[in-house]
Amino acid sequence: MASEQMTVAQLCAEVKAAAPALARAPREIKDAALQALADSLEARSAELIEANALDLAAGEAAGLSAALLDRLLLNKERIAAIAAGARQVAALDDPVGELIEQRELENGLRLRKLRVPLGVVAVVYEARPNVTIDASALCLKSGNACLLRGSGSAEHSNAMMVEIAADAAESVGLPRAVVTLVGGGRDHLAELATQQGVVDLIVPRGGEGLKAALEQVATIPVLYAASGNCHVYVDRGADLQQAAAITLNAKVQRPGVCNAAETLLIHRDVAAEFVPSIVNQLLDAGVELRADEATKEFAGAELGERLVDASDSDWGTEFLDLILAVRIVDSVGEAIEHITRYGSGHSEAIVTQDEEAARAFELGVDAACVYVNASTRFTDGAEFGMGAEIGNSTQKLHARGPIGLRELCTFKYVISGDGQVRA
Amino acid sequence: MASEQMTVAQLCAEVKAAAPALARAPREIKDAALQALADSLEARSAELIEANALDLAAGEAAGLSAALLDRLLLNKERIAAIAAGARQVAALDDPVGELIEQRELENGLRLRKLRVPLGVVAVVYEARPNVTIDASALCLKSGNACLLRGSGSAEHSNAMMVEIAADAAESVGLPRAVVTLVGGGRDHLAELATQQGVVDLIVPRGGEGLKAALEQVATIPVLYAASGNCHVYVDRGADLQQAAAITLNAKVQRPGVCNAAETLLIHRDVAAEFVPSIVNQLLDAGVELRADEATKEFAGAELGERLVDASDSDWGTEFLDLILAVRIVDSVGEAIEHITRYGSGHSEAIVTQDEEAARAFELGVDAACVYVNASTRFTDGAEFGMGAEIGNSTQKLHARGPIGLRELCTFKYVISGDGQVRA
Repeated sequence: MASEQMTVAQLCAEVKAAAPALARAPREIKDAALQALADSLEARSAELIEANALDLAAGEAAGLSAALLDRLLLNKERIAAIAAGARQVAALDDPVGELIEQRELENGLRLRKLRVPLGVVAVVYEARPNVTIDASALCLKSGNACLLRGSGSAEHSNAMMVEIAADAAESVGLPRAVVTLVGGGRDHLAELATQQGVVDLIVPRGGEGLKAALEQVATIPVLYAASGNCHVYVDRGADLQQAAAITLNAKVQRPGVCNAAETLLIHRDVAAEFVPSIVNQLLDAGVELRADEATKEFAGAELGERLVDASDSDWGTEFLDLILAVRIVDSVGEAIEHITRYGSGHSEAIVTQDEEAARAFELGVDAACVYVNASTRFTDGAEFGMGAEIGNSTQKLHARGPIGLRELCTFKYVISGDGQVRA
Repeated sequence: MASEQMTVAQLCAEVKAAAPALARAPREIKDAALQALADSLEARSAELIEANALDLAAGEAAGLSAALLDRLLLNKERIAAIAAGARQVAALDDPVGELIEQRELENGLRLRKLRVPLGVVAVVYEARPNVTIDASALCLKSGNACLLRGSGSAEHSNAMMVEIAADAAESVGLPRAVVTLVGGGRDHLAELATQQGVVDLIVPRGGEGLKAALEQVATIPVLYAASGNCHVYVDRGADLQQAAAITLNAKVQRPGVCNAAETLLIHRDVAAEFVPSIVNQLLDAGVELRADEATKEFAGAELGERLVDASDSDWGTEFLDLILAVRIVDSVGEAIEHITRYGSGHSEAIVTQDEEAARAFELGVDAACVYVNASTRFTDGAEFGMGAEIGNSTQKLHARGPIGLRELCTFKYVISGDGQVRA
């Protein structure tokens, strides 16, 4: 492949030139490419595992942690799961060409608002090589040519997967460049993030470091899938059994993800009953609790001993771990204020049977997803019935919440007339 | 007012603090504010004209051109028109709370996607003081607190209008700060454009200079209402009478606006018939034509003399004047290529009775608005039935085409359950 010798700008120009063919491709062609991609991943899994072994060896030599090496690892099962993901994307409805709105204007013009691909989408991500195929599949299906910039630690795995994806595109008559790998260091990221008029969107999938790096240099639109500092608020009108189940699920079921809860807010009126019980259950589940003074008092002397004093910084921290901050509030209004101050606009839950409190929380909390009597863990493209997603946006513009196929599209107005001119 | 002594960051914080009250305000309150605003503009028109006289005097002393002074001028008629505009916005549907989508998930969760205000919107604009009220009205109705940064040349007029708008907000129980003026120079613009987490969106209404200034400094989302380099393509399948009417309307009816045509593309097969006639009509209308060699040949020796040779830069220029570039193409594909290369993604028209050509153009042209057999001049919020607009976006993210009330909103998912947790 020539891509090794090309500059990032040249690579991007090549991808842009390839984009219209994919943007116009009918569903059958795109789905056939996804099927070919899935089949080929499985057929060539031995080759892919060999490429991955090179990354693993380099990672070991570089002293990567066992956890990072596990993230990097591809085996037959994982490859089969990645292929299955691509087939699931093929089964989703085609967002391209969807009629979003139409109306006939008084002058007889017929106005249609149609969903169309963005054009060229860059995805920047970290260790896990499966993102290479997940992102390729979502971009192919949504009609977007894609530039993929994975981690240097997965370079051999990513190169092989992009080759497989480009082969699949070629096998159905699409240009190979609709799936293109971008290598290199931070300079290359800056070059990628300033391709105005060529790259239509960058989606970073990674931590705050990547976000900060992009904020400094990007001149093209970025869709940040930012961190989730999510809250569960147990209102005085809560069914306390429901509240316990939701709290435990939101914190414990998978603590390392962005829709897990990081702070529990409890209304003072139910604290005497709820605090001792939930504290016991959370401690039993291995959760470290960082509590305010009032929570410690409600927990009682013995249980209170087992709680860590919350510091101010705890309210704003996304622990991504078995740690939960706990605070007593006097009203739903105070809960909303706390969330407004510390939340990241991701997923926020209230537990209550009181409709007025639920309505106040729904209206007052400014977040992508506001839950009433359900766990924050449902914020997910698949759970929402949107199919696969490329991340969760905490931005307000364009896409908020799960970034699925539709969110990777824009629209155009097509206006048809019979000679209308403006008076 | 304290605003003179406050920093931009302090002003923005004050506006953000005021925003939730407006975001939650029901339609009746917002409409009452708009009516009060309109009434008060008329009742206080003498005061406003006095303030405006200060700006006009300063402008004259500074040697502003007659055209700029006219833009600056407020008189009774203009104030009445501005008030009528605010009343029209009051009559529009409230976008806030609109149910965009809803579904029940298999686990019984009810998911609703609801339209909500962005929060705090900054509008940066140039000479015309009417924008102060137009933008205030659109922001009030869409539930967004707004920061207005007009031209220094209109400072007295703008200050008085913002006072009237803030009074109107206060008269219905909203915080005054929901409409706030930001003064100062370029430094202040940079401070405004970096208020992450405070200002949700900046909408610049102005020329390329303003756009370039913002691109360099902005870290918060910007919705550029960029320039329009629009094309009319007369296909070989065109009804040539329709083609002439559309071409004339798109160029001549109001040449100084972004949806006016700047280049005419003509299929070679109809050029012999169409060129002499359209050239005559355009010249009669006072249009300077910058033509390629082929157009001059089709025009014939005598008429060809009256055409200016097009230079390469003409294809990419938004003339905003009675100037039109003209070029002969061999196919609809070549027209699409020309538009892809030189267009700004605003409004593009094909004139044809050939459905295949129309379909190819609709699919192949990547622009906010694609017209078949109609003038590009229809790209406008009011013409599209969206009500008033704050500009036309040529971006692909969030809003494309007219930026109306809905485009000044985001959405949130509200998910209601009865204790669902994730398995």
